[in-house]
Amino acid sequence: MGIMRKRLSTEEYVQGLRSGDRGILARAITLIESGLDSDRELANQVLSGIMPFTGNSIRVAVSGVPGAGKSTLIEAMGKSLTAKGRKIAVLAVDPSSSISSGSILGDKTRMEELSRDPLAFIRPSPTGSSRGGITRRTREAILLCEAAGYEAILIETVGVGQIETQVHEMVDCFVLVMLTGAGDELQMIKKGVMEIADIIVINKADGSNREKANRTRQEMAHVLKSYPEVSPGWKTKVLTASAAEKQGVEAVWEEIFHFQSVAISAGVFKSARERQNIQWMKEYLLELLETELYHSGKVQKAFPGLSEKVAAGEIPATLAAERLYRIFKSEE
Amino acid sequence: MGIMRKRLSTEEYVQGLRSGDRGILARAITLIESGLDSDRELANQVLSGIMPFTGNSIRVAVSGVPGAGKSTLIEAMGKSLTAKGRKIAVLAVDPSSSISSGSILGDKTRMEELSRDPLAFIRPSPTGSSRGGITRRTREAILLCEAAGYEAILIETVGVGQIETQVHEMVDCFVLVMLTGAGDELQMIKKGVMEIADIIVINKADGSNREKANRTRQEMAHVLKSYPEVSPGWKTKVLTASAAEKQGVEAVWEEIFHFQSVAISAGVFKSARERQNIQWMKEYLLELLETELYHSGKVQKAFPGLSEKVAAGEIPATLAAERLYRIFKSEE
Repeated sequence: MGIMRKRLSTEEYVQGLRSGDRGILARAITLIESGLDSDRELANQVLSGIMPFTGNSIRVAVSGVPGAGKSTLIEAMGKSLTAKGRKIAVLAVDPSSSISSGSILGDKTRMEELSRDPLAFIRPSPTGSSRGGITRRTREAILLCEAAGYEAILIETVGVGQIETQVHEMVDCFVLVMLTGAGDELQMIKKGVMEIADIIVINKADGSNREKANRTRQEMAHVLKSYPEVSPGWKTKVLTASAAEKQGVEAVWEEIFHFQSVAISAGVFKSARERQNIQWMKEYLLELLETELYHSGKVQKAFPGLSEKVAAGEIPATLAAERLYRIFKSEE
Repeated sequence: MGIMRKRLSTEEYVQGLRSGDRGILARAITLIESGLDSDRELANQVLSGIMPFTGNSIRVAVSGVPGAGKSTLIEAMGKSLTAKGRKIAVLAVDPSSSISSGSILGDKTRMEELSRDPLAFIRPSPTGSSRGGITRRTREAILLCEAAGYEAILIETVGVGQIETQVHEMVDCFVLVMLTGAGDELQMIKKGVMEIADIIVINKADGSNREKANRTRQEMAHVLKSYPEVSPGWKTKVLTASAAEKQGVEAVWEEIFHFQSVAISAGVFKSARERQNIQWMKEYLLELLETELYHSGKVQKAFPGLSEKVAAGEIPATLAAERLYRIFKSEE
């Protein structure tokens, strides 16, 4: 349960966030991660209070398979930004973190230098929550960080399928971190992640690996030429970088801001966020309905019997659904 | 509107289907495609009546980009089966058919020979319906065809992203048709379709193309070795075929039935269908709720104003969703 602390008011949260208080930011994120109804109410008030102060960051996803060097790259990217006096927040989205240990950011020391930087805020992945829950929490954490004045929000995510699409729906720019060789390229292409990457960074382009990385970059750049634009006026860019040798990290930021300015010029930067917000509202609305549905006593009572018949092919799935629907409605 | 016909009773539909009457089958599919409430009620009765006689076919998806030669391959596969006295049904799923003309199976003459075969039943894609609607209609059409004694149901689908995943959820075996060269492989891999393919057929492996197709097959088989199993005991198989020269078509069926026997041995054939049925019930239940939600007068009235505020970032999406949810519930 941790140490007992005085419950903060909405006003204290909003003021604390606006003043950039890191302790308050951490507590606010804990608040939105809470499953308690009373916390949810307060969280909604806090979020409502900060809305006018949100939206001013560049939201960037950094995705890649485990071992691609995402953390090291993010640390280098973070240091490069804070060196210019700019504030950066790093949030992790890891659907597996509740199951497996050793997940991303679980161990803060992996970004030791950045975590000690007063201009950086690092938050590990929320654990023990459903996938839908992770999405909502991450989106809300982005808003809280923005209210606290963070100018760049990096969302670190492990490249494992569906979650990428969800993260893509909450950021402005999607950066894919890859390694050269080891079938890594094919692996990522296969996962369909490349379709949504605005920028691809071939990482660990150092030492004896540098030449190979450059060759891979050229090959990929060639292939990507024939791909459609991922955003109006923008085809996926490929870069090489070495977080260890701090090479090419600056160029990643340059491309991110280049991407942003192209999107703004094309008039899609704002409209993409608007679309994301509406989409989020609709998804959450359905989630609320679904939650109510499966919490209904009558539905819970009827579900096993109907499921069994549907599974066995005794009654059509649509008919069973209609029956459950009527059972659900009759309760109210 | 077509010619006025006497409305059939549930009993007439069920008996007609069981006797394998193709005219009744066609009318039953039209019935389940209807948007009228009265038709829906009758459709449910018909489906309930035939459930004991469903589930006895092998359900196979045949997917691939336009031009991969799906129709020609399906026709050859169909003829090879009917030559043995077995009945085959071909259904098309094409989410684009309501928008663009020139869609799959829109032109029946593309399977001219098979369409004249008394042991074959071909049904073009339902048009003008939502994606969710297409899914339901196709699943129900499968059941109707099974009740009418069709032993193999082929679902033809254009390889365009999300629909593949949905079709994958209604079949036992997923066959991906590809061409060699032309960046086709990369295209399909990129779409993530390869992840769900049980069997890959490199089509048009004829004439001067044969050698190239064989080389591609070997390369892909090599790559696929390192991929995980798509089903217990089964890694994606790669074949070459020429529908034009009627080469390798028999082998496609052999692999399909081989896949089926492996799935049965592993105990997953039945359980996969059970899972699909439950999944379908849940999806349809949510669809019913969502439809009711967006048909609610109060929701329709509140939606535009809240959407605008959410889009502009004035209020949090979750809060707007909760408000819409309460507005929806207050109506009842």
